[in-house]
Amino acid sequence: MENKPHLQQPFSFQDYQDNFPDSTKNLDADISIFHYDEATIEEKKFNEVEECFIYKDKDKTVTWIDVDDTSQIPLIQKLSQNYGLHALLVEDIICADQRPKLDEYNNHLFIVVKMLTYDNEKQNINSEQISFVLGSNYVMSFQELDKKGDVFDKVRERIRNSKGKIRKYGADYLLYALIDTIVDNYFIILEKIGERIEDMEGRLITDPNPSKLRDLYRLKREVIFIRKSVWPLREVINKLERDYSELITDHTKIYIKDVYDHTVQVIDTVESYRDILASMLDIYLSSISNKMNSVMKVLTVISTIFMPLTFIVGVYGMNFQNMPELKWKYGYFIVLGVCGVISFLMLSFFRKKRWL
Amino acid sequence: MENKPHLQQPFSFQDYQDNFPDSTKNLDADISIFHYDEATIEEKKFNEVEECFIYKDKDKTVTWIDVDDTSQIPLIQKLSQNYGLHALLVEDIICADQRPKLDEYNNHLFIVVKMLTYDNEKQNINSEQISFVLGSNYVMSFQELDKKGDVFDKVRERIRNSKGKIRKYGADYLLYALIDTIVDNYFIILEKIGERIEDMEGRLITDPNPSKLRDLYRLKREVIFIRKSVWPLREVINKLERDYSELITDHTKIYIKDVYDHTVQVIDTVESYRDILASMLDIYLSSISNKMNSVMKVLTVISTIFMPLTFIVGVYGMNFQNMPELKWKYGYFIVLGVCGVISFLMLSFFRKKRWL
Amino acid sequence: MENKPHLQQPFSFQDYQDNFPDSTKNLDADISIFHYDEATIEEKKFNEVEECFIYKDKDKTVTWIDVDDTSQIPLIQKLSQNYGLHALLVEDIICADQRPKLDEYNNHLFIVVKMLTYDNEKQNINSEQISFVLGSNYVMSFQELDKKGDVFDKVRERIRNSKGKIRKYGADYLLYALIDTIVDNYFIILEKIGERIEDMEGRLITDPNPSKLRDLYRLKREVIFIRKSVWPLREVINKLERDYSELITDHTKIYIKDVYDHTVQVIDTVESYRDILASMLDIYLSSISNKMNSVMKVLTVISTIFMPLTFIVGVYGMNFQNMPELKWKYGYFIVLGVCGVISFLMLSFFRKKRWL
Amino acid sequence: MENKPHLQQPFSFQDYQDNFPDSTKNLDADISIFHYDEATIEEKKFNEVEECFIYKDKDKTVTWIDVDDTSQIPLIQKLSQNYGLHALLVEDIICADQRPKLDEYNNHLFIVVKMLTYDNEKQNINSEQISFVLGSNYVMSFQELDKKGDVFDKVRERIRNSKGKIRKYGADYLLYALIDTIVDNYFIILEKIGERIEDMEGRLITDPNPSKLRDLYRLKREVIFIRKSVWPLREVINKLERDYSELITDHTKIYIKDVYDHTVQVIDTVESYRDILASMLDIYLSSISNKMNSVMKVLTVISTIFMPLTFIVGVYGMNFQNMPELKWKYGYFIVLGVCGVISFLMLSFFRKKRWL
Amino acid sequence: MENKPHLQQPFSFQDYQDNFPDSTKNLDADISIFHYDEATIEEKKFNEVEECFIYKDKDKTVTWIDVDDTSQIPLIQKLSQNYGLHALLVEDIICADQRPKLDEYNNHLFIVVKMLTYDNEKQNINSEQISFVLGSNYVMSFQELDKKGDVFDKVRERIRNSKGKIRKYGADYLLYALIDTIVDNYFIILEKIGERIEDMEGRLITDPNPSKLRDLYRLKREVIFIRKSVWPLREVINKLERDYSELITDHTKIYIKDVYDHTVQVIDTVESYRDILASMLDIYLSSISNKMNSVMKVLTVISTIFMPLTFIVGVYGMNFQNMPELKWKYGYFIVLGVCGVISFLMLSFFRKKRWL
Repeated sequence: MENKPHLQQPFSFQDYQDNFPDSTKNLDADISIFHYDEATIEEKKFNEVEECFIYKDKDKTVTWIDVDDTSQIPLIQKLSQNYGLHALLVEDIICADQRPKLDEYNNHLFIVVKMLTYDNEKQNINSEQISFVLGSNYVMSFQELDKKGDVFDKVRERIRNSKGKIRKYGADYLLYALIDTIVDNYFIILEKIGERIEDMEGRLITDPNPSKLRDLYRLKREVIFIRKSVWPLREVINKLERDYSELITDHTKIYIKDVYDHTVQVIDTVESYRDILASMLDIYLSSISNKMNSVMKVLTVISTIFMPLTFIVGVYGMNFQNMPELKWKYGYFIVLGVCGVISFLMLSFFRKKRWL
Repeated sequence: MENKPHLQQPFSFQDYQDNFPDSTKNLDADISIFHYDEATIEEKKFNEVEECFIYKDKDKTVTWIDVDDTSQIPLIQKLSQNYGLHALLVEDIICADQRPKLDEYNNHLFIVVKMLTYDNEKQNINSEQISFVLGSNYVMSFQELDKKGDVFDKVRERIRNSKGKIRKYGADYLLYALIDTIVDNYFIILEKIGERIEDMEGRLITDPNPSKLRDLYRLKREVIFIRKSVWPLREVINKLERDYSELITDHTKIYIKDVYDHTVQVIDTVESYRDILASMLDIYLSSISNKMNSVMKVLTVISTIFMPLTFIVGVYGMNFQNMPELKWKYGYFIVLGVCGVISFLMLSFFRKKRWL
Repeated sequence: MENKPHLQQPFSFQDYQDNFPDSTKNLDADISIFHYDEATIEEKKFNEVEECFIYKDKDKTVTWIDVDDTSQIPLIQKLSQNYGLHALLVEDIICADQRPKLDEYNNHLFIVVKMLTYDNEKQNINSEQISFVLGSNYVMSFQELDKKGDVFDKVRERIRNSKGKIRKYGADYLLYALIDTIVDNYFIILEKIGERIEDMEGRLITDPNPSKLRDLYRLKREVIFIRKSVWPLREVINKLERDYSELITDHTKIYIKDVYDHTVQVIDTVESYRDILASMLDIYLSSISNKMNSVMKVLTVISTIFMPLTFIVGVYGMNFQNMPELKWKYGYFIVLGVCGVISFLMLSFFRKKRWL
Repeated sequence: MENKPHLQQPFSFQDYQDNFPDSTKNLDADISIFHYDEATIEEKKFNEVEECFIYKDKDKTVTWIDVDDTSQIPLIQKLSQNYGLHALLVEDIICADQRPKLDEYNNHLFIVVKMLTYDNEKQNINSEQISFVLGSNYVMSFQELDKKGDVFDKVRERIRNSKGKIRKYGADYLLYALIDTIVDNYFIILEKIGERIEDMEGRLITDPNPSKLRDLYRLKREVIFIRKSVWPLREVINKLERDYSELITDHTKIYIKDVYDHTVQVIDTVESYRDILASMLDIYLSSISNKMNSVMKVLTVISTIFMPLTFIVGVYGMNFQNMPELKWKYGYFIVLGVCGVISFLMLSFFRKKRWL
Repeated sequence: MENKPHLQQPFSFQDYQDNFPDSTKNLDADISIFHYDEATIEEKKFNEVEECFIYKDKDKTVTWIDVDDTSQIPLIQKLSQNYGLHALLVEDIICADQRPKLDEYNNHLFIVVKMLTYDNEKQNINSEQISFVLGSNYVMSFQELDKKGDVFDKVRERIRNSKGKIRKYGADYLLYALIDTIVDNYFIILEKIGERIEDMEGRLITDPNPSKLRDLYRLKREVIFIRKSVWPLREVINKLERDYSELITDHTKIYIKDVYDHTVQVIDTVESYRDILASMLDIYLSSISNKMNSVMKVLTVISTIFMPLTFIVGVYGMNFQNMPELKWKYGYFIVLGVCGVISFLMLSFFRKKRWL
């Protein structure tokens, strides 16, 4: 299940340096390139990382290098060496359990975010780490292999069709567009969770049962999980907006401010979901207690009515030789009558006490 | 229900830019204009947005442009182009699920707040997003279409009648008056909720039942909902008071400080409602446990008295041939007496234990 | 009940400006004046606000103007006009539901605090808003009408008798003395609540019952109420100590620092009361569960002993023709013996399990 | 009980100034003096405060004036007048319910801390307020009267024996040594509480009973009490380390930093105790529920087995004339067999359900 | 058990100075030395601390002095005197209950961290205090005696084999490598705990029983314990990264930033574990209530069916002379039929109510 706090020991840098095999394994990862300016566009896919290198010094254009498989360590290493990326940055790309963060290096920024997608079939949340490197004329994005697809197709479409002016602006605007897409996707997740919460809350008081409890617990874990992804993201985007003026233009910063607002909105919603889920659990507990109460009342009413009656008929089942009532002509009917009266009084009493 | 955390995916800016149809749909929205200075006043309603444009350069007067339907995208776009508003701002006006916020642009401020009104019929809270744009000589306000009416009638009346000196001051004072009206309305909401809390709390201990639980849960959600609207508002008004001296005069800032104090007061009250509601749920749980306890006591008392008695009469219902007591003349009455004594002892015991 | 979160919609400034009647209603409020310096003292009471005006320009002396009825709007307005107070300040004096706060105006400070008194009869807390205006040579204090008396008599006595050097110092020291008296009164309230907590906690484990629950809930609400008054007060006094050097001498600031320490101490105590009350509710819940547990044990013990016995005697109450035991001479006594043995074994078993 | 939040209204400064009796009561308090430099040492005890005054101007030596009874108001007043201490400081010394704090005066510092000691007999915590005044060449310490002894004997020993270089350094180092001793004592308290927690936690799940609940509640209150003493102390020591360079040498500051670390460690431990105690209460509640569950199961098993059996034998206790089974030869034994089979099936069912 | 909050009174500095015996006990502790630069390496173990002294002034190389037994007070004291370490630092090394911290001295830094290891056998966490001293050309590490082994073998291997360029850099990089190893080990611990959480959570709803409760409580304590070690570590590493530029090169700071990120990640995970464990306890309580509910239902169903039936057969067990039904030919069978019908109706009723 994706929404569990899975923890792998982060691939240690030392291990990496010490154990890195000099492998020459065939590089079959999908590297896709978008290389564009306002007028022209070039789109390619290839396996040889060396083909990327030619774009490095094209200053007037924007290059988006999208690597689809972070397990291709040699490929990523070659790329990073060619572009002058720091060794620690490479390590962070490879280990999939980073916290969203922003690191500043000499002439590039390194950003890690979590892309969350909702798996409608399994009804759970998939998390995939996306690492971005932003240089003056390029954006690199690194995705984990084993996850299918991404949420960037809209951006690709806009670049191809030159819609939305994306091709007028630089690499920083591209980075904004990519992160914005990821954040927008959070809202879809939250909407799904919101639906499940509303779905559940109607039935929680009327029909509290263990399967509800399980659902509630799962929702809670998912909210904790999203929270862990979004809180650090806020900090990342905030830094992005405030600093790094050499890489990010003022024009783009206005847009990043907008993503920041969205992130805060996600956090607000996550926090109120937490509140609501906590209330729901309390409500659940109270509902169970209510139910038990009503069960107990039924038991008590039944016992209180029939125990005295059983005692009475027990009395006249005794075999004493001298029991005058037994010889009365209407003794039997009197006893039945007494039983009826007792039942009636008891029932009235319980009705008055609102137990019935 | 309005007071649920409804979440629509925010209308993405990209979508907006990409998909915006070049529609020439008939503009039938209500745009209403107040255009005044201390001496003169002009009030109009129209559908053609172009009629607004003439007020743009009138520096000595104040113009209040009130747009009643944020779904009229082309109208809003034309207006914003004419007044030089940023595209992101337009996007925020259109999407109704913004968080209260304040954005600064070159020569105007953009403010989003939530107008809350209490629907007395449905007993719930309606939320409507109001976006303000403050320029040096104008205030624009944008309201969602599908909501009925607003809370600004008092302000309109004061402008018309030149009461309260509102016409002596500039656009910043008008903005203050509008926001103040919205914040004042929060108190009405809180008062309603306060009444419902007081209403409920008397009956919570004496008569805990599932319908109380449902009311409690609804109150809790409403408080979470208000909280989500008010906390960011505080920040917005605080910023408004501290910065932006070119658009807001010192004279108005004193008034904004006053709105700020009111907002903090709303927050204080919301927080203490949260506290009180949390206590009430605990109290509710305790009350149910108390009730169950008393039900259990009744059951136990009844069982403890009648089980031994039923056993005794059972003994003398046995058919052994040799049971000397059966032949005693007063055997029957002795048994009845013993039963009476046992009942009496049991009752005394339970009275001593305070179970009765 | 005073300790409920009562919320009136704040008297809006607009309303005030618009609706203020030009009333010439007879001014029968008690205005009392203390006008003193180290050598001389003058004490007066009157109804005509104009009599205050002569003190305005006496720079060498201190004037304390104490207005006892904030519903006398015209009176307060005249006074404020004469002394040049801001209109918003007047509004805040009139509305009794301000949050404690400090506002700075040109040449005077405006301070709102909550005076809490304990009503021994009704066993609850009364809250009254006191507004202070501090000028260079005067202190004004405004009290709500409908509340009886105040806590300032000690201060009055000291001024009259020239005790404690109060007449040596300026208006700022007088303000200190008044606020100090109010804060000292908080300790009396806390002491009362502390007593009620200690009172209750002994009996909570031994005798948990719904009336305890009600008391607990009331205490909780009172603590929430005090908290709401004290937290903002801390901020107010802190500001008073740090800033405003033109109105408050360094000599007085040392004393204000002392009031600040007391306020923090009140907050500390309130917070630990909150903690303790939360623990007490948990304890209460646990105690009820404990009690229910012991009730259940009694029921179970009784049932477990008598159900098998009743079954056994039921067996020998059957009317089968062929039941050899019925003819045994000592059958009856054997059965009685068996019943005794079973009871004994059961009791031993429950004793071993510590249910008895 | 010492560990209750006892609150006396702080002895108001006004009261003090107004009501201070011109008493000439015999001064029989223990004042003890240590007066030393690296080479010489003088130790005295006396009752006449005037004897202290000679040490005031000895700049090269350190004087420690230890006053053992803060109820000796005239004594303390004379001392403070001679040494030029502020009147508010004297008030704070006299009132035993100060919060730990540090006040700065012209040429001396005033420090209030809480000395906590563990009373092994009564198993509770005693709190005593110690006030320190640090001048350039003296330290004064003021202890409450009614408490027995202090924790300073080690420091006295070191001064006498010139151990640990304490006599090489100034008054600031002496102050450090005294505070350090007090903080070290906190660890003893925490150790005791830690032992009681460990003691309790083993038995909490196996044997939850009301006396455990009482212990738990007492522990909780003690932790709240310590917390209230330690949090403000941290701030005090932090200030001491950062500021006041004229009174405290850099050499001593390194040592004060060390005390600061210890204080933070105490806070950490207190906070984790709070966490653990909260968990323990939850565990307690769960354990009780567990127990009740097992009691209920016994009841249910017994009822479920014997109710059907009792019904069956009741059937054959009926007196109908036409009941063929009664005449069967083995009817009685068949019924007994049926009862046995039913019991067996029920028991198997409950075993399968893990109720037994 | 290691994961309990064990608290020893910190070895007081005074005690240390006063009581330190002039012992000349045989120094048999393992001191191991790594002394290297890029080209050469020297590895030694010895007992005479004096052998370390020769490395003190070798500026071009890095020396790692690893002391394995902090109870060897004289050894540590000699070492510290030779290297000019502060006396308080020595005290902190000796007392094993420090909080992770960083102290700055003239030309060296002192760092305390907690090494956590997971004991697979006992299923608990071992904690060992490691103290580091960083000078310009050396790192000292001090480990507690009674704990077996450490986690530094990887680092030793890398130094020996000159892997990972560790020998190219200075003492600061060595310190980084050591701390990084410790932090990496935290992830192993968290992974173990994560596994145990996942393990437990499946069975919590289906089979809540007291042993689960015990496990839950242990997990909670372990998480509190880790938390106490990691929060202060974060601060330590943060300081290390920001300040102290004279001892730590910019090159190493990038790596320390990386350790910082890992620490924050550990904290994030610990906090979400806390959240999850809190939820699990709530779930546990709810599950028990659910179970009790179902037990109660069984009891109520059984009682409700058999009590009326037992009453009916009791009626016909009475010995009245005039009971017409007894003489009916099919009376017996009619009664049996009535009993069957009643049972059937009851069962249908309970099925409808979903109690079965």
